[in-house]
Amino acid sequence: MDKSKKKNGLSFKEYTEGILSGNRSVLSQAITLVESTLPKHSELAQKIINHCLPYTGKSIRIGITGIPGVGKSTFIETFGLYLTKEEKRTVAVLAIDPTSERSKGSILGDKVRMEKLSLDQNAFIRPSPTSGSLGGVAQSTRETILLCEAAGFNTIIIETVGVGQSEIAVDSMVDFFLLLLIAGAGDEIQGMKRGIMEMADTVAITKADGENITRAERAKREFENAIQLFPSKEGGWIPEVTTCSSLANKGIKEIWEIIIKHQDLIEKSGLLQKKRQEQTKRWMHEAILYALKRSFYSNADINKTVLDLEKKVAEGKKSPFTAAKELLNTYFKSVS
Amino acid sequence: MDKSKKKNGLSFKEYTEGILSGNRSVLSQAITLVESTLPKHSELAQKIINHCLPYTGKSIRIGITGIPGVGKSTFIETFGLYLTKEEKRTVAVLAIDPTSERSKGSILGDKVRMEKLSLDQNAFIRPSPTSGSLGGVAQSTRETILLCEAAGFNTIIIETVGVGQSEIAVDSMVDFFLLLLIAGAGDEIQGMKRGIMEMADTVAITKADGENITRAERAKREFENAIQLFPSKEGGWIPEVTTCSSLANKGIKEIWEIIIKHQDLIEKSGLLQKKRQEQTKRWMHEAILYALKRSFYSNADINKTVLDLEKKVAEGKKSPFTAAKELLNTYFKSVS
Repeated sequence: MDKSKKKNGLSFKEYTEGILSGNRSVLSQAITLVESTLPKHSELAQKIINHCLPYTGKSIRIGITGIPGVGKSTFIETFGLYLTKEEKRTVAVLAIDPTSERSKGSILGDKVRMEKLSLDQNAFIRPSPTSGSLGGVAQSTRETILLCEAAGFNTIIIETVGVGQSEIAVDSMVDFFLLLLIAGAGDEIQGMKRGIMEMADTVAITKADGENITRAERAKREFENAIQLFPSKEGGWIPEVTTCSSLANKGIKEIWEIIIKHQDLIEKSGLLQKKRQEQTKRWMHEAILYALKRSFYSNADINKTVLDLEKKVAEGKKSPFTAAKELLNTYFKSVS
Repeated sequence: MDKSKKKNGLSFKEYTEGILSGNRSVLSQAITLVESTLPKHSELAQKIINHCLPYTGKSIRIGITGIPGVGKSTFIETFGLYLTKEEKRTVAVLAIDPTSERSKGSILGDKVRMEKLSLDQNAFIRPSPTSGSLGGVAQSTRETILLCEAAGFNTIIIETVGVGQSEIAVDSMVDFFLLLLIAGAGDEIQGMKRGIMEMADTVAITKADGENITRAERAKREFENAIQLFPSKEGGWIPEVTTCSSLANKGIKEIWEIIIKHQDLIEKSGLLQKKRQEQTKRWMHEAILYALKRSFYSNADINKTVLDLEKKVAEGKKSPFTAAKELLNTYFKSVS
């Protein structure tokens, strides 16, 4: 093997051929390239994505969210295995977690927590990037969706932690949004937080097994009432509320059937195409905004002054608008 | 009078002295200056705001929202008159409505719809800027708040139409957020839209008069139940639900008492100061972001190419990230 090539990673041809033939080792490396912030990586990544573009868009893109403790990993493991075994689908699981500062160690952890699925020939699990702002993470996740589709995965699952902003980002990436909730006193608020409930195309109460079944069924009825307060979604879709158990493997098939029903509805009405086009345009504008922000806040001259000005602003010594103007002058002088 | 001066507007001294002495004609002109996008206006506006800064921050800032038809204008008129007459307060009413493209004609309309309040010596009504993006409108509203405070108004009301984004902007400007709702079949969804309900520090069911009282009371109970599903606000504040009638002048005093109770709570706990400081810092960063966006999207070279690239992206001929990169390259070449 050509040593210099190995040092510099794969070639464009190796990447694209590898991805399009479904080689998951190459896919992994391509995703790493996409996540890299080095300009030379970024350039090659863009070339690869553009080459793959005609082979993308054919999957069902599913967002799954829920607060920690709801059993997301267990659910995705059970759900993913159901899809590969019973529905003969190929499943890529991606994660968005801007709060995480995971080390290599917990990337391993990600595979451990979905142990069986990670060994499945028809599944591919990719943990959240270990660093970066939500804007950056969202952007590389969007690119990763395209790469996974080009590699032949027909089901993309985007997992996110229910904390607010990241759900909004995921909502702009997926066709279907599943909210996982657990039954229990007081925690009815979990899904109401920051309008996540409104984004949900379906709500599933997890851990509906053993002694928990009654509570889960009661929670289901409560959420059915609550969900009536929300306007119906585009295309007239009314969010469903269901229960499931990952351990007892119950309600899993039903959730997939709901997803298929939803996909059918939006595909036939032309909503899917419209939604995807709007999403793609939004990706472009968000990528621009993200790059502008990054260019500004990573500027050395800005970094020298921004904290001091922020302090003056908080103390009421300078108007926020004047401080902004000063910083902008500094920035534009520096980039010109 | 110096003719050239008149042509060029007031001088810095005339502006600042006029504002600080509570001259509302000068205040109006200063707000127009703040809303102007001309660089020379903007520079003078910043100077004026900085000069006024030590005299700002002493008002109660209240956001009021609700869908069209809820009776916002009538409520604000009644509420405003209550404040000036009974509480001896001075009230400035500002509006944010990024969807409006109002002509001079409906600025007049704004005064007509709050006829009595607009004639009140202790009230000042300023309609929404006639044009501009939400970012721009939000920024000039923030500056306008400061000018009104410097002019001696101790109660600032920010009115907004309940459509989503603008409420979030208002929430970052005010101490207290009041959501107006109307009772009626099916329209319980009005407050649930896009998480507005969560931002509310209090919900008031309007038009609780005549035959409508029973419905309003029922709606009140429904919302009291619904609001329990939301987490309590910072400082342990639990949003209240109340009814009111602007026509019968009922429940108005009670709303003011709730606001005072809330202000007391957040003032004593130090939350108000903290909230204001966070808001001010946020204003700075939003002003930066807004300026970066505006600089980008008003760039002539970008305008020449952006629509074409957007089309290619929507058609799947180019990846959104590549299109973004191309546009950014064009932009940075153009500003350097």
